[in-house]
Amino acid sequence: MGLTSLNQQLLSKIATNDEHGENSPYFDGWKAYDNDPFHLTKNPNGVIQMGLAENQLCFDLIKEWIEKNPTASICTTEGSMAFKDIANFQDYHGLPEFRNVRLFDPYAVAKFMGRVRGGRVKFDPNKIVMSGGATGANETIMFCLADPGDAFLVPSPYYPAFVRDLRWRTGVQIIPVTCESSNNFQITIEALEEAYNKTVEANIRVKGLIITNPSNPLGTILDKDTLKSLVNFINERNIHLVCDEIYTATIFRLPHFTSISEVIQDMDSNDDLIHIVYSLSKDMGFPGFRVGIVYSYNNEVVSCARKMSSFGLVSSQTQYLLAAMLSDDDFVGRFLDESSRRLECRHKIFIEGLKEMGIHCLNSNAGLFCWMNLRPLLKESTIEAEMALWRVIINDVKLNVSPGSSFHCTEVGWFRVCFANMDDDTVEIALQRIRKFVTKKEREVATVNKKRCQMNL
Amino acid sequence: MGLTSLNQQLLSKIATNDEHGENSPYFDGWKAYDNDPFHLTKNPNGVIQMGLAENQLCFDLIKEWIEKNPTASICTTEGSMAFKDIANFQDYHGLPEFRNVRLFDPYAVAKFMGRVRGGRVKFDPNKIVMSGGATGANETIMFCLADPGDAFLVPSPYYPAFVRDLRWRTGVQIIPVTCESSNNFQITIEALEEAYNKTVEANIRVKGLIITNPSNPLGTILDKDTLKSLVNFINERNIHLVCDEIYTATIFRLPHFTSISEVIQDMDSNDDLIHIVYSLSKDMGFPGFRVGIVYSYNNEVVSCARKMSSFGLVSSQTQYLLAAMLSDDDFVGRFLDESSRRLECRHKIFIEGLKEMGIHCLNSNAGLFCWMNLRPLLKESTIEAEMALWRVIINDVKLNVSPGSSFHCTEVGWFRVCFANMDDDTVEIALQRIRKFVTKKEREVATVNKKRCQMNL
Repeated sequence: MGLTSLNQQLLSKIATNDEHGENSPYFDGWKAYDNDPFHLTKNPNGVIQMGLAENQLCFDLIKEWIEKNPTASICTTEGSMAFKDIANFQDYHGLPEFRNVRLFDPYAVAKFMGRVRGGRVKFDPNKIVMSGGATGANETIMFCLADPGDAFLVPSPYYPAFVRDLRWRTGVQIIPVTCESSNNFQITIEALEEAYNKTVEANIRVKGLIITNPSNPLGTILDKDTLKSLVNFINERNIHLVCDEIYTATIFRLPHFTSISEVIQDMDSNDDLIHIVYSLSKDMGFPGFRVGIVYSYNNEVVSCARKMSSFGLVSSQTQYLLAAMLSDDDFVGRFLDESSRRLECRHKIFIEGLKEMGIHCLNSNAGLFCWMNLRPLLKESTIEAEMALWRVIINDVKLNVSPGSSFHCTEVGWFRVCFANMDDDTVEIALQRIRKFVTKKEREVATVNKKRCQMNL
Repeated sequence: MGLTSLNQQLLSKIATNDEHGENSPYFDGWKAYDNDPFHLTKNPNGVIQMGLAENQLCFDLIKEWIEKNPTASICTTEGSMAFKDIANFQDYHGLPEFRNVRLFDPYAVAKFMGRVRGGRVKFDPNKIVMSGGATGANETIMFCLADPGDAFLVPSPYYPAFVRDLRWRTGVQIIPVTCESSNNFQITIEALEEAYNKTVEANIRVKGLIITNPSNPLGTILDKDTLKSLVNFINERNIHLVCDEIYTATIFRLPHFTSISEVIQDMDSNDDLIHIVYSLSKDMGFPGFRVGIVYSYNNEVVSCARKMSSFGLVSSQTQYLLAAMLSDDDFVGRFLDESSRRLECRHKIFIEGLKEMGIHCLNSNAGLFCWMNLRPLLKESTIEAEMALWRVIINDVKLNVSPGSSFHCTEVGWFRVCFANMDDDTVEIALQRIRKFVTKKEREVATVNKKRCQMNL
């Protein structure tokens, strides 16, 4: 018996089924960067990381706040008196007044969630549950809502790691709902119905629909009417609607963002079916802090998710810092405004640079990335051609961008390119590299055409 | 249809099966404390919390170190330059040199793990995986090793929250292995074989054995010969051995602790079957920081657990602090020595105080608690009588101790009492309360005996 089959008996199916989703170009691109990381002076020919949706544009504001607020940390002379209480603090969920400390301040978080959504809706602190990042929040909500084998509909293209977060350990199935460039990748009721009906016909129980709004990888937002039609769709079928809104504060220009929480205020919906996933990784730029949030309108889900939070509680040291930071209304306001302004500026520089070279991106107003159309550069309309182009971009152009196929996009030639995890100089170099590549490609095409022309003569 | 059955259709089995294990007196006791928490001056008649295995005796040393090492924090003026890199740092496991930062410093952790085990064994940094506390580490190892329905043998009495950690979301079954006071609750091969055979006869696949060493709730350690016999037991059956060693540094007197890692060095064992769960919650007293560790001798388990670590990564802010702290050899040595010395002192004061009142504890040399025998105070030898006594202790004596039944102990009358989560004055008051209670009990018994005597006359 080989080692693999021996281990298949020894270990679990989860450990041996290879369904963790990490064998994707999305993650491979990170490795390419890791092997030869760009640095402006130390490694100017290295790979530029454009595969990471990080928000690094406003750390100067955070640093300033940190230095002005030494008591927000248990590791300063001013704050170290609190070290003992904080290092010991464990969230015994359901015991809100435990020790009269509640580090994970749901009031501050609820206020923040309302604020980034334009103040048009109030969030109830009692419906907020802490999780280990959006990763943990997504898995938690699946464990609460679905049994192994049950299915969730997910509009494609979608976040590559959903495969791990939603499916891997829960056994839940992801059923893609096809969105197409012909209508700017909007979700249609027809596509939803088709995916739903096919799944039901295959005798699989559909437990709900998951949307990301703003969308990763599209950077687009859903309008009120679409959201209403989705709420009707799930109500008619008595299935759940999970709204991943982790990019809410990355909206950098009009139209305004509409949260699902705003939409259901005016609708006759069964709110027990509505759940929001939130996080501070994108909106504040703190992915390392692992703050994920499950906000559910269903009290039983809140209660269950709170028990599950034991598997992914946020470090109390970080909770303590963030409780102070998010409670500072002036700072939060200034940060959100400035972050949005800087994102708009960065987005404009980047897509206008691309436009000059004849490369177009999907029109978007949110996110830390754009959805770039390189279809004209493909040798043929196949995934193989997309992967071949991707390898050239990684290995020769030395940019780690992520191919659309890793987002389960059904059309080839699209790439997600992140633009907020670098400084201005690096963006400029990235644009130069793309320009050089496109010019070379155009020359190649011209030469081929010339040759063809000569052969025809 | 009632609300419950409606939700049973709407939510998952996990969300509705009530098998999270939180409906236990172990957790109820915490609530009693929470409703009326003792405070030396503000609430001197409140409930004293003796149900929490926390190590609070050495925070002065930590505070001193913190103040001397301002660069260990990203929230000091000295350290804030690192804020951006650290807040952004995410562990892309498998990419060890990512950004040339490796916050969760496996070298420092491996060294620390060896050091608390007396330096008799070396740990390999490559076998270390980070988890969200021991809670996350325990669940992770179950997800790696067992499928739903598979079983793990667990000697009883055992940690109440194992029900949640090992079983709730994984679907793994816990099969208790009965340990008895007649041999000081030692694990016998006979009891193991009985549990194993019964499980196999019931057509349930036994995937392994989990031991806690030092034991929670017993505070005892396993000797080398017992450990060897356990390694033989699992090797003969080709099942796993998971060793929860989270109380390693709480050993406060001889004999020395023997880690499973030390035992297998000299044995012809299949090391692919051996896994250690570790944490900084007890040994350093940082439960709020949520640092759990899976250390596996099986490379496939390491690889799988690393992918699962995304669900419970430790905040990078905390990783940064701990990387600096654990790398300070002088400090670590001083801390471990002093912690052990203070625990010994506290343990002695507490159990000698009890002994004077005629209350005996199981002989132990580790842990943050003792295993107290109150059988003589039971009205009858039943769980009901144990629970009745427990309620008197919580409500009248106002001490939150944890009844043996919540640890799945098969003998009644045992209680776990934590002694390291309070200051000297509070211990003294706790002892006074117990003394008063025992004296009253003795008087009651004397009165009853007197009455009986008079009636007989």
